[in-house]
Amino acid sequence: MASTDRARVFSGIQPSGEFHIGNYLGAARQWASMVRDQKEELLFCIVDAHAITVPFEPAELKRRILALTRDLIACGLDPDKCTLFVQSDVPEHTELAWYLAAVTPMGDLGRMTQFKEKSENKDFVSCALFTYPVLMSADILLYKATVVPVGDDQVQHVELARETVRRFNHRFGEIFPEPHPRLSTATRIKGVDGNAKMSKSKNNSIATFSPPDEFWGKLRTAFTDPQRLRKSDPGRPEVCNIYTMHKAVSPEATCNEVYANCTQAKWGCMDCKKVLWENFDRELTPLREKRASLDDDAVRAALAKGAEKARATAKETVTEVRTAMGLGSGAVR
Amino acid sequence: MASTDRARVFSGIQPSGEFHIGNYLGAARQWASMVRDQKEELLFCIVDAHAITVPFEPAELKRRILALTRDLIACGLDPDKCTLFVQSDVPEHTELAWYLAAVTPMGDLGRMTQFKEKSENKDFVSCALFTYPVLMSADILLYKATVVPVGDDQVQHVELARETVRRFNHRFGEIFPEPHPRLSTATRIKGVDGNAKMSKSKNNSIATFSPPDEFWGKLRTAFTDPQRLRKSDPGRPEVCNIYTMHKAVSPEATCNEVYANCTQAKWGCMDCKKVLWENFDRELTPLREKRASLDDDAVRAALAKGAEKARATAKETVTEVRTAMGLGSGAVR
Repeated sequence: MASTDRARVFSGIQPSGEFHIGNYLGAARQWASMVRDQKEELLFCIVDAHAITVPFEPAELKRRILALTRDLIACGLDPDKCTLFVQSDVPEHTELAWYLAAVTPMGDLGRMTQFKEKSENKDFVSCALFTYPVLMSADILLYKATVVPVGDDQVQHVELARETVRRFNHRFGEIFPEPHPRLSTATRIKGVDGNAKMSKSKNNSIATFSPPDEFWGKLRTAFTDPQRLRKSDPGRPEVCNIYTMHKAVSPEATCNEVYANCTQAKWGCMDCKKVLWENFDRELTPLREKRASLDDDAVRAALAKGAEKARATAKETVTEVRTAMGLGSGAVR
Repeated sequence: MASTDRARVFSGIQPSGEFHIGNYLGAARQWASMVRDQKEELLFCIVDAHAITVPFEPAELKRRILALTRDLIACGLDPDKCTLFVQSDVPEHTELAWYLAAVTPMGDLGRMTQFKEKSENKDFVSCALFTYPVLMSADILLYKATVVPVGDDQVQHVELARETVRRFNHRFGEIFPEPHPRLSTATRIKGVDGNAKMSKSKNNSIATFSPPDEFWGKLRTAFTDPQRLRKSDPGRPEVCNIYTMHKAVSPEATCNEVYANCTQAKWGCMDCKKVLWENFDRELTPLREKRASLDDDAVRAALAKGAEKARATAKETVTEVRTAMGLGSGAVR
């Protein structure tokens, strides 16, 4: 990773669940556009060490890491144009997390909204769930990233990382720049059951790379405007998840057509969904082809290269941190 | 580290404070005897990553790591006959700590007596102080050690490590053996002010390798039996810290002589201390010579070798753990 004047951007994605169109439209598509632009230095990290903070299945995790990487490359995260890697392939993440834990107040972690939500009414709350934000700080600071694209739910964690920078630098010298959250401007896609969050575990998701007929099967039965009971009722696109998706994948002219035909009850929901499906299909077809061209070996080779690039920077940072903190024998590493 | 049928023993020592005669008589001397015996495979770890869980000075920590190693080698921890290394020279400690944190219940950590004591009435309680026992579990399990020599205050942490083994193995397969605490049989030496714990921060310690006249200066003014106000008062060796030290370093005949002369008020405390000092000096003289022969380069070379030996096993264990948990791309490490 050559040092340049470009901002360094760090994004993490958990290899849990499936890669659904909410992930695609909400994150991966923006990332791919950043990769095409090449205006910033980009790191995309499959955060498997975060995935183990809640119950998980090892075989499924292993499978998901490669599958997600394949999906992301297919979406445009070209491993030659960004650093795409698996978190636990770079052990400096957990190492730095320990060093940062020494300057992170325990009280701050107890105040994290996500921890409260995820630990509420659970029989087993792991220590790692509690210290999750410290590892996330390490993810960002390890690369001295200054921009962290996140959803609303992660802003508090980036704020904690900023405070950790201030505390660490004050105590041990100016080592880290302060990272800034960059809020996603992408529209959030609801589940096909109308639920606010699309998620495989809620069985309300559409897998981005499901075969076209399966994709259509999910789309066909998806919730629309709950007040539009008959085709002759005028619809309200502004509350309809299908219209939200149109705005994400259909040309502007089509969106205008959809709006007019829905509000004037000229199209039924099925007509509208058919058009959406075609536009999804047009966008996803080249991605599907790219994906089909990637086997596990190609994906692993990309990840090996990504880990190598990431580690070059990661090793520099932990060496700097260890020196500043007075750690180690000075004889190795 | 060759695999043998000998039990594997892990001991950690913090590079904080100074190496005083409490540390020497309470731990290092036993360790040196284990090294001489060669009945077990021995790992001695300078736990610097534990030292940062409470306030510390980087320059002092850096200095203490080398100084403590030098002292330990001088005491008989021959780097050719044991694995003597610095914790943060082996980053697998913090890596395994993260993986174990995923199976360690947060509630168990809140119940640790040492955490409660160290966090009580403190303005700043670090996340690392709370998760300290998880790193200690990793220290032990990384080497699949089955014996952990500890003082009373650490038994609870070894018990937690045992539970972590049971939880981990149950969830991910039989990887770790259960470690057992081995309680130190060495007598605890009180501070020279009569305080129960000898510690430099309490200014009641005698540095093991202080020059003989300085050593005598501390010993000369040390608390004895508080009820013995005049030389003509009979003393009570059983409550006297000086007698405790005699039993540790003086020949049995001398101890009997001391006991008789004290209880019969034949010796004053100064006579008794003089004999103790001579016996300390006889024991420490060859150690001082060994210590003088070691410069920083020799100490660093020993630690580099120790880290290399330790890492060979450490890497095997984390690879096994990562595979069992489904972590990583499988393309690197």
